[in-house]
Amino acid sequence: MINKTKVAIIAGSDTDLPVIAETIKLLENFGVKYCVSVASAHRTPAMVEKYVAQAEKNGAQVFIAAAGMAAALPGVVASKTLLPVIGIPIESKTLGGLDALFSIVQMPPGIPVATVAIGKAGAKNAALLAVQMLSLKDVALNKKMAVYRKKNGDTIIEKDKRLQRLGIHKYMEINK
Amino acid sequence: MINKTKVAIIAGSDTDLPVIAETIKLLENFGVKYCVSVASAHRTPAMVEKYVAQAEKNGAQVFIAAAGMAAALPGVVASKTLLPVIGIPIESKTLGGLDALFSIVQMPPGIPVATVAIGKAGAKNAALLAVQMLSLKDVALNKKMAVYRKKNGDTIIEKDKRLQRLGIHKYMEINK
Amino acid sequence: MINKTKVAIIAGSDTDLPVIAETIKLLENFGVKYCVSVASAHRTPAMVEKYVAQAEKNGAQVFIAAAGMAAALPGVVASKTLLPVIGIPIESKTLGGLDALFSIVQMPPGIPVATVAIGKAGAKNAALLAVQMLSLKDVALNKKMAVYRKKNGDTIIEKDKRLQRLGIHKYMEINK
Amino acid sequence: MINKTKVAIIAGSDTDLPVIAETIKLLENFGVKYCVSVASAHRTPAMVEKYVAQAEKNGAQVFIAAAGMAAALPGVVASKTLLPVIGIPIESKTLGGLDALFSIVQMPPGIPVATVAIGKAGAKNAALLAVQMLSLKDVALNKKMAVYRKKNGDTIIEKDKRLQRLGIHKYMEINK
Amino acid sequence: MINKTKVAIIAGSDTDLPVIAETIKLLENFGVKYCVSVASAHRTPAMVEKYVAQAEKNGAQVFIAAAGMAAALPGVVASKTLLPVIGIPIESKTLGGLDALFSIVQMPPGIPVATVAIGKAGAKNAALLAVQMLSLKDVALNKKMAVYRKKNGDTIIEKDKRLQRLGIHKYMEINK
Amino acid sequence: MINKTKVAIIAGSDTDLPVIAETIKLLENFGVKYCVSVASAHRTPAMVEKYVAQAEKNGAQVFIAAAGMAAALPGVVASKTLLPVIGIPIESKTLGGLDALFSIVQMPPGIPVATVAIGKAGAKNAALLAVQMLSLKDVALNKKMAVYRKKNGDTIIEKDKRLQRLGIHKYMEINK
Amino acid sequence: MINKTKVAIIAGSDTDLPVIAETIKLLENFGVKYCVSVASAHRTPAMVEKYVAQAEKNGAQVFIAAAGMAAALPGVVASKTLLPVIGIPIESKTLGGLDALFSIVQMPPGIPVATVAIGKAGAKNAALLAVQMLSLKDVALNKKMAVYRKKNGDTIIEKDKRLQRLGIHKYMEINK
Amino acid sequence: MINKTKVAIIAGSDTDLPVIAETIKLLENFGVKYCVSVASAHRTPAMVEKYVAQAEKNGAQVFIAAAGMAAALPGVVASKTLLPVIGIPIESKTLGGLDALFSIVQMPPGIPVATVAIGKAGAKNAALLAVQMLSLKDVALNKKMAVYRKKNGDTIIEKDKRLQRLGIHKYMEINK
Repeated sequence: MINKTKVAIIAGSDTDLPVIAETIKLLENFGVKYCVSVASAHRTPAMVEKYVAQAEKNGAQVFIAAAGMAAALPGVVASKTLLPVIGIPIESKTLGGLDALFSIVQMPPGIPVATVAIGKAGAKNAALLAVQMLSLKDVALNKKMAVYRKKNGDTIIEKDKRLQRLGIHKYMEINK
Repeated sequence: MINKTKVAIIAGSDTDLPVIAETIKLLENFGVKYCVSVASAHRTPAMVEKYVAQAEKNGAQVFIAAAGMAAALPGVVASKTLLPVIGIPIESKTLGGLDALFSIVQMPPGIPVATVAIGKAGAKNAALLAVQMLSLKDVALNKKMAVYRKKNGDTIIEKDKRLQRLGIHKYMEINK
Repeated sequence: MINKTKVAIIAGSDTDLPVIAETIKLLENFGVKYCVSVASAHRTPAMVEKYVAQAEKNGAQVFIAAAGMAAALPGVVASKTLLPVIGIPIESKTLGGLDALFSIVQMPPGIPVATVAIGKAGAKNAALLAVQMLSLKDVALNKKMAVYRKKNGDTIIEKDKRLQRLGIHKYMEINK
Repeated sequence: MINKTKVAIIAGSDTDLPVIAETIKLLENFGVKYCVSVASAHRTPAMVEKYVAQAEKNGAQVFIAAAGMAAALPGVVASKTLLPVIGIPIESKTLGGLDALFSIVQMPPGIPVATVAIGKAGAKNAALLAVQMLSLKDVALNKKMAVYRKKNGDTIIEKDKRLQRLGIHKYMEINK
Repeated sequence: MINKTKVAIIAGSDTDLPVIAETIKLLENFGVKYCVSVASAHRTPAMVEKYVAQAEKNGAQVFIAAAGMAAALPGVVASKTLLPVIGIPIESKTLGGLDALFSIVQMPPGIPVATVAIGKAGAKNAALLAVQMLSLKDVALNKKMAVYRKKNGDTIIEKDKRLQRLGIHKYMEINK
Repeated sequence: MINKTKVAIIAGSDTDLPVIAETIKLLENFGVKYCVSVASAHRTPAMVEKYVAQAEKNGAQVFIAAAGMAAALPGVVASKTLLPVIGIPIESKTLGGLDALFSIVQMPPGIPVATVAIGKAGAKNAALLAVQMLSLKDVALNKKMAVYRKKNGDTIIEKDKRLQRLGIHKYMEINK
Repeated sequence: MINKTKVAIIAGSDTDLPVIAETIKLLENFGVKYCVSVASAHRTPAMVEKYVAQAEKNGAQVFIAAAGMAAALPGVVASKTLLPVIGIPIESKTLGGLDALFSIVQMPPGIPVATVAIGKAGAKNAALLAVQMLSLKDVALNKKMAVYRKKNGDTIIEKDKRLQRLGIHKYMEINK
Repeated sequence: MINKTKVAIIAGSDTDLPVIAETIKLLENFGVKYCVSVASAHRTPAMVEKYVAQAEKNGAQVFIAAAGMAAALPGVVASKTLLPVIGIPIESKTLGGLDALFSIVQMPPGIPVATVAIGKAGAKNAALLAVQMLSLKDVALNKKMAVYRKKNGDTIIEKDKRLQRLGIHKYMEINK
């Protein structure tokens, strides 16, 4: 595990890592230290507990947990820490991620999990949400977020400008 | 907790007890010793672990766990024991129990939960399924199940006989 | 609007306030200053914008937005601030809150909304999640959360003790 | 943006343009002037507002907005204009477009969005619905719609004639 | 049937009229002439056809059709007229209106139905959408819509002012 | 069981009889002889088999089977007879009848069940569908169906006439 | 159209014909005369009506109608004839055929549609259900159905015998 | 059929065998004797009954039944035996296995089916659940399960160690 971490990411399975990759890319863009671990709420519960404790010791401020199917991991992590936990529902083959979404977002009162969208869209937003939380006591990070937001919006504005310049037919032809 | 228990029942909240009551009534009919506890996978995880260990010491052979919403309890119990675990999805106000069903039945490979129907129908079947499991090494119990099944079928046969005798109109008038 | 606020709550309609009441009760228990406003993403968009700016000036660190049906409010609030936004899906008469849940949790990448469960369970967890975020720079609040968690768990432990003492039949008779 | 526009189309992302292409093709068939823009309700809200105002100045009579996931765009457009707004739900990878459908069609009372089917079928109908609205004050356009409808029906009649002539087996062999 | 009608409303059953009442109240507020009829796509198809023709002769510019279950009415009306048709899905007892929603919004390409939300919320928005369409050639009506929108927003602003003045606790106590 | 029966109705439970009552009322209106029995695919499978054989001997031409939850009854009846089987999904408390609908309509190829709508609407249509099947060799019954259809349509026409005469406001006031 | 037809099949679009092919293959196996036509409830309603009348004149005893999305065709056919109508929901790209299923099975009381499973499984069963209806007055056809059923069952029995003989591993290797 | 069997597996169709293969692989790992048969609840009901009786005679202690669509097989097996029955919902093309899940898990009270997850994940857990049941009277098997669980957890721990050693970027590159 990486020392001096800000965001501790736990994936329920190493098959979830391609989704988690979206989270990591964004955290790196923001220069936020993170650690990633694979641990299963059902198959290695002791490991989850140990990992949560260790991450807290290493300075973690936010947890991100990703899991599919009966996705208990985010809730179990949340039950082991007082820190905020963000949950990413992973899409499975059969129910389109609806099983994971319900298993994560419908937490009973007492132990919240901050749930984001199913799959890669959610993985990106998990990173941004973690950065927003960290920004509460890190003004520099907050400024980076302002820059990111502006850049993100500007990308769309640029695309639209190009669309206006080329016209819809050429734009689509080129982007094919 | 009752000593010398065969079936250990855990409810995620004491608001689930009216559903669990259906399980208990049937277990008592079969003369199966049981214990009931309230413990939350998210709010009292240590208690769940302790309770599972204690039930095993007291002779429990089967676990029944009932929970609603992001119903992690059955899966968490299953992760703490090698004994079979039966999960009852409890209906919540908003999603008709579909959230609990998905959270219980969609267990990832490695740790199974034997899932039954949402709510009271499932609570009854949880008891019968537990009795079926116990019957694998208890011939007397197996015979009781044969009697129960027959009686259960006979009730329907009796109702049908009465229906044939009275005719549908009178039958419905009386049963209103 | 209350001056010196930590959590800014916006409800999409004043019919959502009974749900929001659960959030408020918990925030008051934690001694967290909050403000509540009613503003509609669709009917009073300018007011939402104004309200977000004003809340930021008054010191808000976290936003909580609750809405039903095509619940655009949490996402619109999130698009106007860099602060973390928590979204509560409100149950409507026809689709059990699934419409609001999808409208809030399925945010496209770029602007996250930390989504909690549908209805009152979510409203409680929204408060706790906000407190967790604020605790990142408020050690006293973090300690209160530890106390709350313990007390919350103890309530269940007490219920279970009472259940063991009374037995399930008496317990249910009394709690009827 | 094209001057003297009748229908203003806004896509939430340039990845939605292949769906929008179906709308455009039909509008061109009807000789209806349109403009297309890419703007995000969440990432470039100011741009959406600006675009709506500009489109109105350029003579737009109807808006068409397409978006996926938590598809707030059609509702946000509708909140900025008194003109009718047609919403096209875009299919996402995980929930088959149900998330976008609910986010668009379940608008709370006060700000309607005329919702059409998910994906390309809806994109075609969005164009036809816009033409129907414009036809209310353009008799020539209304006549074109009558011709289109007839031709559309005739295509089916022709296919059926061919089916009757060839028989089902040959028809299917040729169309493979 | 009322002569000189602008909006022709057809309900699939007279049990749908309490929902349609929301549409009518709003149309009357806007001073828009309307007619209401009960006709079934399945049980009185000839009547639907006759009614559509008659409404067109009487000057109808927009149709509103409401139906529940396998709600074919809006689509059938749309197939008989070139005028825009708005569809209101009516909630049934078993599937929460999802059956009607799918039956109305998922129109195949060629014949659009402008679908609004399930039930009374949709019934209100159907009226507003019809007014928006009529406003395309009626400046006075457009101005009324601007006034309505403003008033609608002001109601929320007033509620919020009252909420700020009274505080959330008193506000909720009074509104109970 | 009534001798000389045309339609054999089987309900999975006597709690389904209030729904079946709708079927019976219509069959009696058409003067079609029927028998009703209560038998469970799961609890009294032998009885279902016996009942099917007996009904066939008594002259049954069509079966109607109604069941809720994991509604196996219609399919099981269909597997025991060559006669057409109509299935009515009964609404359960938790999933709105969707479980029964899927269990009945999604029959694998080889053994069809003619499925109608969930609950009382379906129960009425089951009777009409049975009459349509019997009409294939009973011209008198076919004529009765024509009369029924006309009357059914006329009821709507009468309601509409009354609505036109009274106006919508009075009509609704009286029908309240 | 083929003269002297027993089963009249109508597809809502010629893209539905590959599904209908399953129906035809079985009808041919049973030596049942049929006709197939393509006609749209929404785009060519007059054609549907004409086609129904013509099929009745040609001796049709049963209708089979297949359609996807807001699948009004089966219900519209049912409203034009007293003969039994079987509806096949066609799978669309976005909602897995659930839209078509609801649009066909949830028919309001008065006009039944005998609904079968989504897609090809349903298309096969539609043929078998039609044969069952025709068998009510055609003893020879009834015997063919008995033979078909037996053969259908025997295929499974043969497969199972082969499975027992080869063992599961070899069986799967060969069938790969 | 293999003599001296412990677990009797029945698949509704030989197309389900690739899913069942997951069950078999695990049972073989545990050295548990099993038999596999293909039998259809709807097409070969007599065979199901015969197979259940034969399996019981051969010493079967647990049944596993897998089926898709209106998956009646597990419930029908359960109605023919007092032994515990595990049901595996098979994914179909159209409804993602939700039809099979509802048809299996929503068993009415009286005849339970221990339901596991849709598809291959469920097929694996069906084997493990069967082993857990058999372990109730087979200490050696129970020990094997303890070993399996440990190994299963260790695999994750090993993966995580490798992940910590390599770092997330290298780990993902290698596992691509």
